[in-house]
Amino acid sequence: MGLIVQKYGGTSVATPERVKHVARRVVATKQAGHKVAVVVSAPGGTTDHLIDLARQVNERPPAREMDMLLATGEQVSIALLAMAIHKLDHAAISLTGAQVRILTDKVHTKARILEVDRRRLDRELSRGNIVIVAGFQGITAEDEITTLGRGGSDVTAVALASALGADVCEIYTDVEGVFTADPRIAPGVRKLDVLSFDEILEMASSGAVVLQTRAAEYAKQYNVPLHIRSTFSEAEGTRIVEERAMEKSRVVTAVTHDRDVTKITIAGLPDVPGVAHRLFSALAARHINVDMIIQSASRDGKADISFTVSSADGETAAKVTEEVSREIGARGVHWENGVAKISIVGAGMVSNPGVAAKLFGAIAEEGVNIQLISTSEIKVSCIIDAAEVERCVRAVHRAFNLDRL
Amino acid sequence: MGLIVQKYGGTSVATPERVKHVARRVVATKQAGHKVAVVVSAPGGTTDHLIDLARQVNERPPAREMDMLLATGEQVSIALLAMAIHKLDHAAISLTGAQVRILTDKVHTKARILEVDRRRLDRELSRGNIVIVAGFQGITAEDEITTLGRGGSDVTAVALASALGADVCEIYTDVEGVFTADPRIAPGVRKLDVLSFDEILEMASSGAVVLQTRAAEYAKQYNVPLHIRSTFSEAEGTRIVEERAMEKSRVVTAVTHDRDVTKITIAGLPDVPGVAHRLFSALAARHINVDMIIQSASRDGKADISFTVSSADGETAAKVTEEVSREIGARGVHWENGVAKISIVGAGMVSNPGVAAKLFGAIAEEGVNIQLISTSEIKVSCIIDAAEVERCVRAVHRAFNLDRL
Repeated sequence: MGLIVQKYGGTSVATPERVKHVARRVVATKQAGHKVAVVVSAPGGTTDHLIDLARQVNERPPAREMDMLLATGEQVSIALLAMAIHKLDHAAISLTGAQVRILTDKVHTKARILEVDRRRLDRELSRGNIVIVAGFQGITAEDEITTLGRGGSDVTAVALASALGADVCEIYTDVEGVFTADPRIAPGVRKLDVLSFDEILEMASSGAVVLQTRAAEYAKQYNVPLHIRSTFSEAEGTRIVEERAMEKSRVVTAVTHDRDVTKITIAGLPDVPGVAHRLFSALAARHINVDMIIQSASRDGKADISFTVSSADGETAAKVTEEVSREIGARGVHWENGVAKISIVGAGMVSNPGVAAKLFGAIAEEGVNIQLISTSEIKVSCIIDAAEVERCVRAVHRAFNLDRL
Repeated sequence: MGLIVQKYGGTSVATPERVKHVARRVVATKQAGHKVAVVVSAPGGTTDHLIDLARQVNERPPAREMDMLLATGEQVSIALLAMAIHKLDHAAISLTGAQVRILTDKVHTKARILEVDRRRLDRELSRGNIVIVAGFQGITAEDEITTLGRGGSDVTAVALASALGADVCEIYTDVEGVFTADPRIAPGVRKLDVLSFDEILEMASSGAVVLQTRAAEYAKQYNVPLHIRSTFSEAEGTRIVEERAMEKSRVVTAVTHDRDVTKITIAGLPDVPGVAHRLFSALAARHINVDMIIQSASRDGKADISFTVSSADGETAAKVTEEVSREIGARGVHWENGVAKISIVGAGMVSNPGVAAKLFGAIAEEGVNIQLISTSEIKVSCIIDAAEVERCVRAVHRAFNLDRL
């Protein structure tokens, strides 16, 4: 008998019928002899509806009140799922983030989990309850309700699995696992049976939306085994395991893309120490995650820095950059939204030369210009025109033979 | 500078436009130099929608999970109202029942407030915040979310006003105050400028829906001055004051009616001590409030007891009564929903003979049969056929000249 944490996303609980379906899956796991803790998101569409309501009373609602508002979505889901499980004659109890005591920092709308108190969870599990926890939300030491940002329910699930020492954290979604590229775009994609933590982390951060980046980070850090699978099928999904447990035969595992990118360039920076530090500290102070950073070679004692952030942060990031630009006497700031990122990810890449060149070649053959390049040990990313991204994904998928085993 | 508690019902916050309107009223009170604490209900329609969702996954949802679900409605309202007040450049903070620590007993869906912790409220008020509190909800000592039953936001407001020693508790509604009868039914009704606690209590419990009965009880018990007025008008409403502060010249103040009545009769009870105790203890154990109780004179050592409960409790009450009937060997139980209660209320009634007779006469002249009668010092109530109630309200309103000052 093990302990399994399951996470169901918003589409899985969007209607009463789907809630009942999830209840049956949860009960089946319980009947197989496991202890079960379930994390759920707000019913699909609810969060957007609440954001829309907020905007109607205040175009810039205070973050604290936004959290107060948004936290209701998950509370609706947990109550409904607990009711549906009771209907199947199994004991279940729903708990808010505050009731579990999922302690976070004070950064409203983007809070980070500091600690998960397992006492209430243990008590309810040992009473035989299926425990249903509201994803996406936590509470500060001062009793203030916080939310973890979009996709935060994944983070909740992994944090819970880590705190409880769960045997596996199952992430249920509306696709059957992680694919070699987005199935809506590229023909001939294959489901991946197994991935390393590093690979899922790079994929998450490069636009594959099956798992939230911070959740992947957390899973890697605390070594929480993940299983990404479909709510609507019994098939095995994609298992995420420690690197040493898997063969390293794959050079490139998948192509990912991300349209949610803003590119910002600050030009004519004085080429003196501390300039980059000043810019990126200012962004960090506003809790803006910077993705790619490229500094061009200096000319006449002046350098350019380009970087990317998620579109949601684009306007704020540009404003911060303009302030810094004035302070340090740079030539100016340029930013644009119409770009996209295309990446290849693979744990075997580091020991195989020529992988990046093949990527650039595939994009060039499509006649598409590469605006920025960044590389890590297991990923190469390029910024291109957003209008060309689908075509390039298909070309790169073909170039690396990802449609073949 | 005083401290004012305001309560806005669901219709007052049903749309973003209305939330903004409420925000302006609240800010005006603050600008007049008062400290302000606001209690809000769920946006109109939300609670019914949530109940409907619950029924779709479980026809008999567990009460604890129902509270988890329903408490989200008020949380949406407080967040939106706080945002709307921020938009007007005033400081405001929303608080859930749990954050205030509105401590209740453990009776889910019908909890009673045990204590309101004023520490957080005081802290936020002294920081200059308008404090916005979720009505209808509380928390048990074990951290479980509870709700206070329909109309529970009135109870929250009065409890808050009492805990804070507020100068007045303003109950905002969609009518301009308390009238001599339901304006939708009787022509020539008058708004009442002032009522005693006893009168509003009898009116609340006899079907005038301007104030929840338990809130009236609480206001009387803790001597909280109330002002019932309209969200949509600046006019003075109805003030509720201690009896000694008002002249006692009115014999009958108002006619009220209530269609939400189930009548239950248990026939052929053995006329021995303890029988009534057994029946009504069994009902109390199920948290069912019994309104009228009439025991007929015994015949052949057997008696009949008739009583009324609110229709929502009708079926459960009938079932409990049938169980007790079998246990004590009564002849049988009869219950029906199609009845209504018509009442006259007035603080001067007790010293004026013939008031009850005049009521019975007015009903008789309409050719309507009186099924049950019950009296208190300041109220006389009759149970009649529900189909006749509007006609009788008009007749009684005329008979007591309530259309004239």
